[in-house]
Amino acid sequence: MENTLKTVTIGLLQHACGTDPEANLAATLDAARSAARAGAQIICTQELFGTQYFCQSENHGNFELAEPIHPNPGPTTQAFQTLAREEKVVIIASLFEQRAPGLFHNTAAIIDADGTLLGTYRKMHIPDDPLYYEKFYFTPGDTSNSGFRTWETAYGKIGVLICWDQWYPEAARLTALSGAEIIFYPTAIGWHPSEKASEGKTQHDAWQTIQRSHAIANGCFVAAVNRIGHEAPAGGEGIEFWGQSFVAAPSGEVIAEAAADQPETLLVQADLAQVHEARTHWPFLRDRRIDAYAGLTERFLD
Amino acid sequence: MENTLKTVTIGLLQHACGTDPEANLAATLDAARSAARAGAQIICTQELFGTQYFCQSENHGNFELAEPIHPNPGPTTQAFQTLAREEKVVIIASLFEQRAPGLFHNTAAIIDADGTLLGTYRKMHIPDDPLYYEKFYFTPGDTSNSGFRTWETAYGKIGVLICWDQWYPEAARLTALSGAEIIFYPTAIGWHPSEKASEGKTQHDAWQTIQRSHAIANGCFVAAVNRIGHEAPAGGEGIEFWGQSFVAAPSGEVIAEAAADQPETLLVQADLAQVHEARTHWPFLRDRRIDAYAGLTERFLD
Repeated sequence: MENTLKTVTIGLLQHACGTDPEANLAATLDAARSAARAGAQIICTQELFGTQYFCQSENHGNFELAEPIHPNPGPTTQAFQTLAREEKVVIIASLFEQRAPGLFHNTAAIIDADGTLLGTYRKMHIPDDPLYYEKFYFTPGDTSNSGFRTWETAYGKIGVLICWDQWYPEAARLTALSGAEIIFYPTAIGWHPSEKASEGKTQHDAWQTIQRSHAIANGCFVAAVNRIGHEAPAGGEGIEFWGQSFVAAPSGEVIAEAAADQPETLLVQADLAQVHEARTHWPFLRDRRIDAYAGLTERFLD
Repeated sequence: MENTLKTVTIGLLQHACGTDPEANLAATLDAARSAARAGAQIICTQELFGTQYFCQSENHGNFELAEPIHPNPGPTTQAFQTLAREEKVVIIASLFEQRAPGLFHNTAAIIDADGTLLGTYRKMHIPDDPLYYEKFYFTPGDTSNSGFRTWETAYGKIGVLICWDQWYPEAARLTALSGAEIIFYPTAIGWHPSEKASEGKTQHDAWQTIQRSHAIANGCFVAAVNRIGHEAPAGGEGIEFWGQSFVAAPSGEVIAEAAADQPETLLVQADLAQVHEARTHWPFLRDRRIDAYAGLTERFLD
């Protein structure tokens, strides 16, 4: 049980995105390198850090923003592989992936501390709501290649889920059952400015609450990374991204939280012994009624 | 969609339990009648309201506290059936059920507003932890007769889960998928007095958070009913039950909450139109990846 006896330092990169992808990449690489030199061992970017959140409209031109990851890494993945190897850090990089002509995913590249591309997680749950038109761009992840899973990295067993996945207890459970001690959630979520006054607090609270609940239910750490800034690449009122990246301990306690409107690198020590402690003192995994859960693979029990 | 257009008044009965079962029953019947006359339409008792929380020890004498419910209702169920009919209220009564000689369950009787016993829910997840020795007393519910389900009552579609079930997203999900607009959680949870100062806040917060998350994930109301008072029927430091019964809206907001140390009947109006509102604005049910959830019926994915 060697893995349960160590502490790992998580680095979460929260920032605003400009309109120039090259500048966004350069800034994110800089932030990752600084985080590594400040002690971060597992670094996670915010969702689709390379661009403004282009899913605010359905625009065929945006497919030009994608690049390959697997099996032949494109330039962004390669840049993070180099950084990972040089700085001896694990990297989770959220990218717009072109898998084949006409086949795109919202993907995270998981890179080990020696620069090896361990694999990819392709977002399984894809939203489609006003200003979040993701179903136009992203094919949902396919389980055979990149379903819910865990990677054993140099610094711990980690799972990765992306944004809309965070509303699904099933996704967190399956990731934890595959061994994850920390679940990372690269995210791009914010307020419709016209709703912020009336709904903003409740919306943010729901977002944090559901992710804290995954930590509690599964006795693992949860680390969410969200962008900041107001973006309206398609005009209109746009989205005010609410930042507030955070880490929850297996108890559900928020042990670190960034601001709503400031770029911030959150460095958080996660004592992985707490996974064992939580899961033996709140032994939920012991008592799951797997004989009675078949209905979870149904759409509705009507 | 007639059910989504109405408001229902929930009544939650939070109180301390004494050592005399007859007195506990009489007090609970009185509280239920008062709640009905104050406007409650669906009334839920706290878990095992008839007795002190006897599971603090493994004592064969405690089996004498059980009584039948289904198919032949015992005196407690009958008393609530009479009350339900007289007051035209739906009742959820949490009881220690003897199903057959040597076969006992932690059960809720669901009684419609005309006194009909609609069915029973037999607790599916059974804890076993210091001072919560429930596996000694209660056989886990068996799906064929009383798994996760919904009852259509005179005042709404309700599901019932019990205490330890509340830590399992699977249970809430299956109950919501079967149609429930409100999930009730009769509960008996509290602090080990020696841990309260160091762990108490985190423990209570986890308990409320996980249940709020069920409301969020499923776009339904959640109503938890917990007892108050210090009980040590088996000696030792006993348990200080933390009360704080509450109702969460489909947004996850706590819309009513009782005190930690006072008897209280919580009367809460639940606008069932919010279920439709939440589920269309946060359309999580739309996007579940039922093709990828088979692993949820596994113990661990190793």
